Amino acid sequence: MTARADKPTLAVVGATGAVGSVMLQILSQHADIWGEIRLIASPRSVGRKLTVRGEEVEVVALDEEAFSGVDVAMFDVPDEVARQWAPVAVAKGAVVVDNSGAFRMDPDVPLVVPEVNPHAARVRSRGIIASPHCTTLSMIVALGALHAEFGLRELVVSSYQAASGAGRAGIDTLRRQLSLVAGTELGTSPGDLRRAVGEHTGPFPEPVALNVVPWAGSPREDGWSSEEMTVRDESRKVLGLPELPVAVTCVRVPVVTAHSLTVHARFEGEVTVDRAREILATAPGVVLFDNPAAGEFPTPADVVGTDPTWVGRVRRALDDPTALELFVCGDNLRKGAALNTAQIAELVAAEFPAP
Amino acid sequence: MTARADKPTLAVVGATGAVGSVMLQILSQHADIWGEIRLIASPRSVGRKLTVRGEEVEVVALDEEAFSGVDVAMFDVPDEVARQWAPVAVAKGAVVVDNSGAFRMDPDVPLVVPEVNPHAARVRSRGIIASPHCTTLSMIVALGALHAEFGLRELVVSSYQAASGAGRAGIDTLRRQLSLVAGTELGTSPGDLRRAVGEHTGPFPEPVALNVVPWAGSPREDGWSSEEMTVRDESRKVLGLPELPVAVTCVRVPVVTAHSLTVHARFEGEVTVDRAREILATAPGVVLFDNPAAGEFPTPADVVGTDPTWVGRVRRALDDPTALELFVCGDNLRKGAALNTAQIAELVAAEFPAP
Repeated sequence: MTARADKPTLAVVGATGAVGSVMLQILSQHADIWGEIRLIASPRSVGRKLTVRGEEVEVVALDEEAFSGVDVAMFDVPDEVARQWAPVAVAKGAVVVDNSGAFRMDPDVPLVVPEVNPHAARVRSRGIIASPHCTTLSMIVALGALHAEFGLRELVVSSYQAASGAGRAGIDTLRRQLSLVAGTELGTSPGDLRRAVGEHTGPFPEPVALNVVPWAGSPREDGWSSEEMTVRDESRKVLGLPELPVAVTCVRVPVVTAHSLTVHARFEGEVTVDRAREILATAPGVVLFDNPAAGEFPTPADVVGTDPTWVGRVRRALDDPTALELFVCGDNLRKGAALNTAQIAELVAAEFPAP
Repeated sequence: MTARADKPTLAVVGATGAVGSVMLQILSQHADIWGEIRLIASPRSVGRKLTVRGEEVEVVALDEEAFSGVDVAMFDVPDEVARQWAPVAVAKGAVVVDNSGAFRMDPDVPLVVPEVNPHAARVRSRGIIASPHCTTLSMIVALGALHAEFGLRELVVSSYQAASGAGRAGIDTLRRQLSLVAGTELGTSPGDLRRAVGEHTGPFPEPVALNVVPWAGSPREDGWSSEEMTVRDESRKVLGLPELPVAVTCVRVPVVTAHSLTVHARFEGEVTVDRAREILATAPGVVLFDNPAAGEFPTPADVVGTDPTWVGRVRRALDDPTALELFVCGDNLRKGAALNTAQIAELVAAEFPAP
């Protein structure tokens, strides 16, 4: 046995999905703190070999036995699968870090962003820690840093969400639609895009190529979408501000990966752009990229494939010295999903005695 | 001579541009209130024949003589051309309706949206009436209707602006970039889009295909862009609310035509969604398209080529009974430019004695 035998065992549940693939990349890039890394997926993927830390690892089936000897299990699976199997993993002795929506608002499950509320990961009466939704995660590290200094009072957020927020099906749908519209005059008369795209709408209610779609998730009360409610509820929980006013409109845009958000953030007292920039320039996990006169502001094209939350267009509201305007951009598959889950797992691993 | 000889003479200055073409369509579709329609453009277009009201009309050169006998002149030309030639047209006896940025904030020039402040068109000491910027126009009819009932107190706006807001060059650039990215795996690693697009960025500072770009216009003080200041200043002027707090972030998206905006609008007192919907459903120039559970919300694909301001996603802010959230969508070449200019010209024509 190598030295790895003394290190904690990690399971990756949902290793073959869009987020799972990025998880394996991240585990290969980060400090090698894990003993065995076990890859778990649905029966149809069993026997597939995936590469992690430069080694081929065979995928095993999701069953009770798969969690034997596992110390930490990262889940990226549909809500109903997480709801069924996370308690099984916990019963077998694992701490579960879950990236689904199943447990995020459970009062007995902490919702953790390591740069913002790492302490919360220690209090986990169900043995489960949840990682927020990708849209929340795309802005919350930057907002957490500003909140720590200025005290947040209100958020108004609009999203520019990438197709990969809807998984591989989202990416495939956008690419297929792009092939249908490129080289045409489409996008110039009412309904022409819908006719051209036909049934190739995938997980989206309307064409996304050459379009923007102000809807993500499922209908909730009073006209709200589930993703809008999610961003509000999760921001409050992560920031520890259960009464924070948060107004969100979620909009899908024809971008492959990297969510962007405009944020109007009002604070307890007067703020200055200079101090806000200092905070953002030094906050862990944040890159300040903000010099429009020199062409510097974040876009998905810069941000995709990178870890940090990128922030640009930092302005103080002209009519309210307590409010800032920001444009925030983050890779929804990395910090928005796989990276944050891996960071939480690393927090838990640090609790184990050093080998 | 036909009956047209008794009707006012209209000049269209900038008849060959992206907006000019739509102006000619609109003049052909609207009630035929004009006598002669004279088409004026830069010297390189002189002699071209364009169709309006089913007849071919030859383009004449922009010079002083071109305005002889003109009653109303609609201008869609660059700011500096408008600044030079609008006073010439006025000196020759025409009322100028200008769609450039040259006069919009001039205190002696009214800024008119016929559904919102038609009365303002009568007070024009310089003989010039200005039409707002396309981004302002994409939301202001809906906001004007809500303001009339509820009294607006604050706006927070984020835009999703189409490529054609930057004219024909914007459309051509987006189409060229789409051809470069369709059928590829681009949009998945940092900088890959920039490398693929190379010098084909046209009027945009970054690739717009598979991207969103949080910048429109030129740099102003304190990190603001000229278009953001424009939306603020013009909204205040059209609504007659010179102190209205307005926070705007302008973002370009890969859509050919039709600007979208998310709007957080705070009013003087409590509002209800039911009453807001009634107002929007009956307001002239507005279409309420708002039933997400049935897949009904406006997108550029529905709205392009149509006249009204489309409004959907009407919600009351969950934490503020005085605020509404809206998603607003309008054709930036029609109501956003040519249509509003034509509507103002028609207001002026109505002042002339009936033939």
